[in-house]
Amino acid sequence: MKREKLRAVIIGFGNVGRKMAMMLTEEAGQYPGLDGLDLQPVAIFTGRHGGVASAGGIDLMKALKQYREKGSFPEAPMAVLQALETMDYDVLVELSTLDIKKRGEPAISHVRAALRRGKHAVTANKGPAAFAYRELSDLARRRKVRFLFESAVMDGAPVFSLGRTLKGVRVTGFSGIFNTTTNYVLSRLEAGESMAEAVRTAQRLGFAESDPSLDLDGWDAAAKTAILANVFLDAGIDPLQVERRGIRELTPEAAARAATAGKRFKLVCRAWREDGRVRAEVRPQEVGAGHCFAAVNGRAAALRLEFDMLGPLWIMEEDPDLMDTAAGVLQDLLVITTDD
Amino acid sequence: MKREKLRAVIIGFGNVGRKMAMMLTEEAGQYPGLDGLDLQPVAIFTGRHGGVASAGGIDLMKALKQYREKGSFPEAPMAVLQALETMDYDVLVELSTLDIKKRGEPAISHVRAALRRGKHAVTANKGPAAFAYRELSDLARRRKVRFLFESAVMDGAPVFSLGRTLKGVRVTGFSGIFNTTTNYVLSRLEAGESMAEAVRTAQRLGFAESDPSLDLDGWDAAAKTAILANVFLDAGIDPLQVERRGIRELTPEAAARAATAGKRFKLVCRAWREDGRVRAEVRPQEVGAGHCFAAVNGRAAALRLEFDMLGPLWIMEEDPDLMDTAAGVLQDLLVITTDD
Repeated sequence: MKREKLRAVIIGFGNVGRKMAMMLTEEAGQYPGLDGLDLQPVAIFTGRHGGVASAGGIDLMKALKQYREKGSFPEAPMAVLQALETMDYDVLVELSTLDIKKRGEPAISHVRAALRRGKHAVTANKGPAAFAYRELSDLARRRKVRFLFESAVMDGAPVFSLGRTLKGVRVTGFSGIFNTTTNYVLSRLEAGESMAEAVRTAQRLGFAESDPSLDLDGWDAAAKTAILANVFLDAGIDPLQVERRGIRELTPEAAARAATAGKRFKLVCRAWREDGRVRAEVRPQEVGAGHCFAAVNGRAAALRLEFDMLGPLWIMEEDPDLMDTAAGVLQDLLVITTDD
Repeated sequence: MKREKLRAVIIGFGNVGRKMAMMLTEEAGQYPGLDGLDLQPVAIFTGRHGGVASAGGIDLMKALKQYREKGSFPEAPMAVLQALETMDYDVLVELSTLDIKKRGEPAISHVRAALRRGKHAVTANKGPAAFAYRELSDLARRRKVRFLFESAVMDGAPVFSLGRTLKGVRVTGFSGIFNTTTNYVLSRLEAGESMAEAVRTAQRLGFAESDPSLDLDGWDAAAKTAILANVFLDAGIDPLQVERRGIRELTPEAAARAATAGKRFKLVCRAWREDGRVRAEVRPQEVGAGHCFAAVNGRAAALRLEFDMLGPLWIMEEDPDLMDTAAGVLQDLLVITTDD
């Protein structure tokens, strides 16, 4: 297989970034499908742990070892935007996390800077597609490059890739369970734990955001719902326009009452067309035991798509972890190397 | 959108063929995604109800009306293979049904004849991909044409389309519930009906094969399992090599006993690698109520794919009907018009 060199500016070198680096180096033997991808960083930036940049290219394995040994890189030799605007690269890999208060910034500016220069942009950050999908996808189309964000919703499950491959079929609406943390917390409430206990467990297990309001108040779910509505329903909305109710008001008692009636609380996301516009909402709902949503346990997530000329389809990921998120980013990078 | 004319030889004008014709003519206004497709038959053949052929093209709407009025076409003006080998067309649309005793023939010969002449082949018949996948897919590759069969498994659910779009990710195994009739019959057994009653109901509702052994003895499920194993695991097997047990031995009493234990019988299909080869099986299994398979009700179907660098993914179709099967064929036709 032809190995295509992709020079990359990587922003974010946390769990996902390091897992991606491991899959491309130390673990490469396990993933023959990655043979065709030769990712060559020219810069790696972190939020608070420095950065590295080298016009001649950075050895990814060495960078990974260096970061592991010191827990950080040296002070970054230049600003992120400076790198994006001046360095020679093929793709921006944006792996920072969503800042809802900053409405997706600075990730949006990073993606914009790359696309404007005719560079591809791949991001696991929900911000760009949740807050600026139309602008950035139009920009990418004009520059004939890719703006991809497979892992922003349901990790590595090929949701957007499936959307690109559907021929003739139009999406008319969707519903789903997208936020792992609330889904896990709800299952702990069912087991009798308090909200606070359940959140602490999720944080300890490493899949709750450090700011729990992103999960509990439904912001993460709303961001994902906005992205799906933007991509599949051409909604042009952002997370603030998603009608949103979180799970903070739910109690172990309410969960127990639902269980007695053979039901389970789930944080259900939905979007649909109504009176010529797209409406979207996130709110806790009781679902019956026979319903597929009730089988979305623990860290699982599910998307139910409705179509014009197909009955509803479900896509569910059973138990995603870091590898799945990294795999979503890697799939996007492979789209760039194989579709062009 | 550019409308691309596709001259077609259509074999089979039963429920699926006529639904496809309706969607392309009378119902076209409902499906804007089909705008780009201008299917122009040059021949339509049926199994026992005659056929039509015209080098200048057949008006699909008129042919549909003619068939509806008379319940048949006139006697076919030539043999199917003669048409495939001599007429001028772009794509074979093979909509006949699987004949397991004839090991997928004559559909395989039809597809082979088209591919050999460098014509695309789209089929809803399970035979070609179940019994001759390697030969036909190699032939298509050499001739640089498409051999597509999206609706052979899970109707219009884009299973193979998803497979083509997955980048870098390798499938390591799968399981699923693919046969609608047995799934429905099992649910009727749970409701206390006898096997014979349940089969009659399924036949009356129009989704059991007229020969119930195809469903009840697991042949339909085995054919679908063979196709998925051939495509996703490069198995090179046929339905006779799938270890197969049907549901005939199951009784309402056994279903009731399972229900008492919180379980449900499902005809589960599986394939996996073992000792350097691919093994595949179809057999009734009890699944727990919390398992996603237990939520596959009535006519639904589900596929669980396992991967090397992704956790397991599920694809489920909720309540497919004729439209879904026709939509699968139409998606394949659109792949031909848009990917070339």
